[in-house]
Amino acid sequence: MMENNHQDRIELDFKKGTGLLPAIVQDYESGKVLMLAYINEESWKKSIQTGEAHYWSRSRKELWHKGGTSGHTQKIIEIFADCDNDTVIFKVEQTGKAACHLGYESCFHKKVNRDGTFIIEEKKIFDPEKVYKK
Amino acid sequence: MMENNHQDRIELDFKKGTGLLPAIVQDYESGKVLMLAYINEESWKKSIQTGEAHYWSRSRKELWHKGGTSGHTQKIIEIFADCDNDTVIFKVEQTGKAACHLGYESCFHKKVNRDGTFIIEEKKIFDPEKVYKK
Repeated sequence: MMENNHQDRIELDFKKGTGLLPAIVQDYESGKVLMLAYINEESWKKSIQTGEAHYWSRSRKELWHKGGTSGHTQKIIEIFADCDNDTVIFKVEQTGKAACHLGYESCFHKKVNRDGTFIIEEKKIFDPEKVYKK
Repeated sequence: MMENNHQDRIELDFKKGTGLLPAIVQDYESGKVLMLAYINEESWKKSIQTGEAHYWSRSRKELWHKGGTSGHTQKIIEIFADCDNDTVIFKVEQTGKAACHLGYESCFHKKVNRDGTFIIEEKKIFDPEKVYKK
């Protein structure tokens, strides 16, 4: 069985669900999961064409060039798609080492205990009030 | 500022979007991302209570005990929640070493090239026709 056909083109299933697909963002070197964001077809094409991560901002309802404001852009080193073509992984080099808008390396800085409580496991790398000039 | 309050309880935002939140599933030891699935409140509680991954199957529209059919259950070792409380990571020990229903270790076995083509990077670990007795 030919499973490794180099000519196959990826066709993400943007018709599924809300038209937005989740993109898992992983640090290329450490494998740490930095964030999850959503892509529409435009941001997917921009990401592939430019090599810099572009998402769809659900809160602002606009194309979001990650790092456009903070300078903390993400250089995409590798992309993976899943079996159902409805989720992708961007393996990135994170400028400034912090992906989270709160100043942490990862958005996933809350470790959840079995009793439903949590602790914050990371230290802030930057002060969001300075970076975003609120 | 007290950021590390052990008494804080996690309250996931199940009211957001479709009521389903994405769960990124990562191999506890290697950090490899195995799959992405969705949780509703019931599957979240079941996962925490039992220590085995439970999701919401969007195709079957039912609570999904991962591995219930294949035997490839996921033992949850660590859980992380993100800054917005709308995405979680389950770090798991994957029984049988394969999380994908197609027989691969990871659902993310397709590496996407810059020209939009892809190659399959993994070998199948099991034969899904035997495991699922289709």
